Amino acid sequence: MFLLVNSLLFVLYLDLTFVSGLNLPARPTKGEVWPKPQLQVSYQKSYLVNPQTFTFHAVAENCKLLERAFDRYLEIINKSMISSETYGYSEQDDDMYEANKEFVGYLDSLNVLLMEPCNHITVPAHTMEEHYILNITTETSNSILSASTIWGILRGLETFSQLLYSTDREMLKINCTTIVDYPRFPHRGLMVDTSRHFIPVGKILKTLDAMSYNKLNVFHWHLTDDDSFPYQSTKYPNLSKMGAYTKSHVYSQSDVKTIIRFAAERGIRVIAEFDTPGHSISWGKAMPELLTTCYTNGVPNGRYGPIDPTKNSTYSFFENFFDEVAEVFPDQYLHLGADEVLPFCWKSNPNIKKFMKEHNIESYKELENYYIQKILNISHNLTKKPILWEDAFTNSVNLTSSTTVQIWKDLKIIGGWKRTADKVTKAGLPILLSACWYLDRLESGGDWRKFYNCEPLSFIGNDQQKALVLGGEACMWTEVVNQYNIESRVWPRASAVAEKLWSAENADTYWNAAKRLEEHACRMNKRGIEAQPPNGAGFCI
Amino acid sequence: MFLLVNSLLFVLYLDLTFVSGLNLPARPTKGEVWPKPQLQVSYQKSYLVNPQTFTFHAVAENCKLLERAFDRYLEIINKSMISSETYGYSEQDDDMYEANKEFVGYLDSLNVLLMEPCNHITVPAHTMEEHYILNITTETSNSILSASTIWGILRGLETFSQLLYSTDREMLKINCTTIVDYPRFPHRGLMVDTSRHFIPVGKILKTLDAMSYNKLNVFHWHLTDDDSFPYQSTKYPNLSKMGAYTKSHVYSQSDVKTIIRFAAERGIRVIAEFDTPGHSISWGKAMPELLTTCYTNGVPNGRYGPIDPTKNSTYSFFENFFDEVAEVFPDQYLHLGADEVLPFCWKSNPNIKKFMKEHNIESYKELENYYIQKILNISHNLTKKPILWEDAFTNSVNLTSSTTVQIWKDLKIIGGWKRTADKVTKAGLPILLSACWYLDRLESGGDWRKFYNCEPLSFIGNDQQKALVLGGEACMWTEVVNQYNIESRVWPRASAVAEKLWSAENADTYWNAAKRLEEHACRMNKRGIEAQPPNGAGFCI
Repeated sequence: MFLLVNSLLFVLYLDLTFVSGLNLPARPTKGEVWPKPQLQVSYQKSYLVNPQTFTFHAVAENCKLLERAFDRYLEIINKSMISSETYGYSEQDDDMYEANKEFVGYLDSLNVLLMEPCNHITVPAHTMEEHYILNITTETSNSILSASTIWGILRGLETFSQLLYSTDREMLKINCTTIVDYPRFPHRGLMVDTSRHFIPVGKILKTLDAMSYNKLNVFHWHLTDDDSFPYQSTKYPNLSKMGAYTKSHVYSQSDVKTIIRFAAERGIRVIAEFDTPGHSISWGKAMPELLTTCYTNGVPNGRYGPIDPTKNSTYSFFENFFDEVAEVFPDQYLHLGADEVLPFCWKSNPNIKKFMKEHNIESYKELENYYIQKILNISHNLTKKPILWEDAFTNSVNLTSSTTVQIWKDLKIIGGWKRTADKVTKAGLPILLSACWYLDRLESGGDWRKFYNCEPLSFIGNDQQKALVLGGEACMWTEVVNQYNIESRVWPRASAVAEKLWSAENADTYWNAAKRLEEHACRMNKRGIEAQPPNGAGFCI
Repeated sequence: MFLLVNSLLFVLYLDLTFVSGLNLPARPTKGEVWPKPQLQVSYQKSYLVNPQTFTFHAVAENCKLLERAFDRYLEIINKSMISSETYGYSEQDDDMYEANKEFVGYLDSLNVLLMEPCNHITVPAHTMEEHYILNITTETSNSILSASTIWGILRGLETFSQLLYSTDREMLKINCTTIVDYPRFPHRGLMVDTSRHFIPVGKILKTLDAMSYNKLNVFHWHLTDDDSFPYQSTKYPNLSKMGAYTKSHVYSQSDVKTIIRFAAERGIRVIAEFDTPGHSISWGKAMPELLTTCYTNGVPNGRYGPIDPTKNSTYSFFENFFDEVAEVFPDQYLHLGADEVLPFCWKSNPNIKKFMKEHNIESYKELENYYIQKILNISHNLTKKPILWEDAFTNSVNLTSSTTVQIWKDLKIIGGWKRTADKVTKAGLPILLSACWYLDRLESGGDWRKFYNCEPLSFIGNDQQKALVLGGEACMWTEVVNQYNIESRVWPRASAVAEKLWSAENADTYWNAAKRLEEHACRMNKRGIEAQPPNGAGFCI
């Protein structure tokens, strides 16, 4: 027995070693870019950069977005300097790192060549072009960032700011480098749920800032759910007046505008989600007539279920409501939700049964189909492209290729998300992947790895199918997340997703990525983002 | 196949309902105390309290700790008012809550009767007495908080501050209440590791504040580990100069004093841990001679292992070092670590083998025993009571009843922590429980439940054995925790542990506790602690 216990304890030792192995410290890199550029060549020559005097030199027509970006990045570059970094290694290491470098002088400014005029542009779109070329050459005056569009320039400025690294000396440094870069997928999103917990506007703006540091380009705003209705509608102000937690837990029209403008300046689209027919209890606080009355033993039991799909008034309401939404949110895409429609309340309600009989609707899935077709039509009439959660597809709702399906389930015994991705793309529908990128799923230790291990194109399917993968989104559901833990929970875990969506497949080994992410998390800290440590023991200054 | 997939999807639905069931919103209570008092009777009569004019009236000799506490709690009471709360229910509910209340007037002050003089007291001790009686009677002038010691008064002031609740009106309220309260266990701790990541002094002070809001009374400071040595020793300044991450990642003597004083004012002991012979690589940065040189094929391989137990110089160093530590940290207890001593490096070293032969030491466990006996002797000579992690006990180190064993492993197949608790207490040694309270173990959702479900006395053992349970500690290892996520990771998860250690066994049902914890998390938020949401959707203002 003693021996048995002993060898079991030894197993425990090994087990612990294994567990703490997951938290192995990673020595951070210096001046490496996250997400990894498509093509990068670095040379053994470097510049010193004085952040006090460094400037951007625009070779472009007047462009407000560009000017604002210059201001932002000059500030960021200054912040890189404020606290001179001392990473997890000694000065000796630092000297070794520098030993092979040849300094070719000072880089006083960067030429920024924007090829297309941008002053007419206000917000980015799904079709936005994000290519850029950044060339830090040994001839100072030849160093240039160029792109056809302002969006490419924004991505390039981010890359440039990340190439700068500080040492114990008084200057920033940058290696001579050539980068040709562009995203692998056009849709690289972060979904934030602001219904379960209200996330203050300031935190959303910080989230957008952090997104831009990761080249994420879609803020998917899950605005409403069962728990609260924080969107202040102009046409239906009572929805938030009665459906928000309190009057301070509301996004006013001005808040929404601020968020959209702030996002646009960073090349980030804002896609609003108004989730129906399920997840809509909070709509009923002001407008109970929108919801299905639930019955027990033939009498209303005081509870409400999904949107009532049988009333004409339901659809005229949504026509008006989405008419407003279409105007407030300029993006071409609109998320209509449609996840987890539970039929129990519909089943209990005699009026619904009667309606189904009258309209030859034989199942609750058909009823769901009936509702969703109507809502899709409304969105179609508003010239918006709809996104739906995968439930609509798996519940056999008739969808055309103008509808994008967001995949969020990963039930292994039926083939996981890959099987769903295969089926949906086989049906010719574009998809967004989120199933392996739910940030609310926690594991002990630095669990960005599991997000990094998910390859969006790893499902079985032909090239045509793969071409339908628009990208994906990390999702931050907020049941147990509020303003106090959202930043450290999202970052740098969502950074792993950002790299999967921007960089080439297998762009980096896992172990190298760990070191780059260590630097990137410190960089975000330095810029004011409360990212948590990604790997194991260590520090930033 | 379609049917199969469908019913599996249904299983998924149920599964999701179950999962989200773990995140069910809980309606917060109003003016309920956390941790739950031993005895509390509330009446249907209430007072209004004007935080602007409310005062404490001391019936006691001059006592600095008491004056400081009054200042603190007056500020806290003022903060309770600043943002008038609107909890997760409507004003109607609020009115219903108040409907049965009879208001008996204004409570302008609270008499505070401290029976024993306290001006000679500077720090709390393991033997501190924490009983208090709080009586808010219908006769204003009779309302009184009384306790024999300042520590009891501190706990009572915390309780009083929690009984106050704010509504939409302009005043705080307090129900007439009688509370007789005392802790179930004398040792109620939070361990924080400041080696894997450095936690700035300000964050430690906030942690101590939050501990006092939870009546936790021991800050177990895991100061050093393999990764860094942040304690600035007076006698051996090189230990931190070379072993800390950088010169800014150091706790100076003045920092340590600040922390001990700040803790003492809140009735919190500070127990330092200097973990040896394992987990000590960082000591070797300045003093490699302390560590075992590891060998490969008979030659040193450049790596170091645990403290070298064979050299006399090792023990004269520790005599000097712990002599300083004993003075700097006034608590009677000293944590000597002794967890996870891996013998591989010892095995590789020929000098160690030689030493063992010369001293008839037949196994590496005996060698560990040899070392630990020496260290225990040093601590004994300094009149400190040692605490060791359980490894020393399970590795058959000879321990006397003056040594406390902290249980941290929970390997189910050998009976889990309960089997260890039985064995250690059977051997007559006092124990501290941490095995079920590791805060670095994360689960999705509000996972305070698993901490709350752990009952420290639930192991098999007689009354004598149970009497050896001094209490326990929640442990925050910081491999992936730094200043950005420590607050939201610890709170309110450690609050669950605090209630298990203070309140009576089965003091509350799980569901009621959820509602009280919801209020408590909001209360901590209001006091500036970045606690995360404990349960599910909801909000605080």
